[in-house]
Amino acid sequence: MIVGTEWLIEAFECEAKTLRDASVLQKVFSQIIADLGLKTLGEPLWHTFGGEGGVTGLVMLTESHLACHTYPEYGVATFNLYCCRTRPEWNWKANLMKTVGAKKVKVAKVERGVEFQDSNPKSIIQNPESKAVGGEI
Amino acid sequence: MIVGTEWLIEAFECEAKTLRDASVLQKVFSQIIADLGLKTLGEPLWHTFGGEGGVTGLVMLTESHLACHTYPEYGVATFNLYCCRTRPEWNWKANLMKTVGAKKVKVAKVERGVEFQDSNPKSIIQNPESKAVGGEI
Repeated sequence: MIVGTEWLIEAFECEAKTLRDASVLQKVFSQIIADLGLKTLGEPLWHTFGGEGGVTGLVMLTESHLACHTYPEYGVATFNLYCCRTRPEWNWKANLMKTVGAKKVKVAKVERGVEFQDSNPKSIIQNPESKAVGGEI
Repeated sequence: MIVGTEWLIEAFECEAKTLRDASVLQKVFSQIIADLGLKTLGEPLWHTFGGEGGVTGLVMLTESHLACHTYPEYGVATFNLYCCRTRPEWNWKANLMKTVGAKKVKVAKVERGVEFQDSNPKSIIQNPESKAVGGEI
């Protein structure tokens, strides 16, 4: 029984300063929420670690949740988008190139609530957008 | 560059009433946080969907985040634990059997921040605990 779909995104070679700026990440969240027609529940949680540290954001959705963690020291940002209703694919690559200066974006998709055989992890993790949004630019 | 480890957990054949009871899930979160020596940031977010609906919980951690979504209609609960510092394995199976009556628990572990070849998704998703915490009881 598939109860939801989760996208796990890694953005590489981002601009460090954007990964320390919560307002940039908040705009990314707003765009995801608007583009996919998601609905927030309660107040978003944001934390900026200060100094050379990154930013963490968590938003509860009626459809599940959206999270990000950034690592300016490595130029890496990761996102999780978990949706319990079918949503279109978001263009992570184009949007993260524009907003945080990502040079590479990896998108993996996991079906949640599914039993699987250990010998076949491919059944639960896929990268259907690899041509569209992953790999070298 | 591995920036964090994320555990994706699916608990199957749980007792529906426990999956509608936020206090049960809050105790699970408290136990995870205490057992793994995690530190919360800000207020936890909890939402009970009411009626036959489930519960969503989100907690920001200095180590990243912890999330759960429950689906009483299917007896399924899913958890995400994302940690940006090395933490021991938590005994998801034993604990979720005891707290939400799970009969089967699947634990997958994903290294975040890692580039991978599409042809080898095994490199980013593993189930190292399959003997200990997965499969049939």
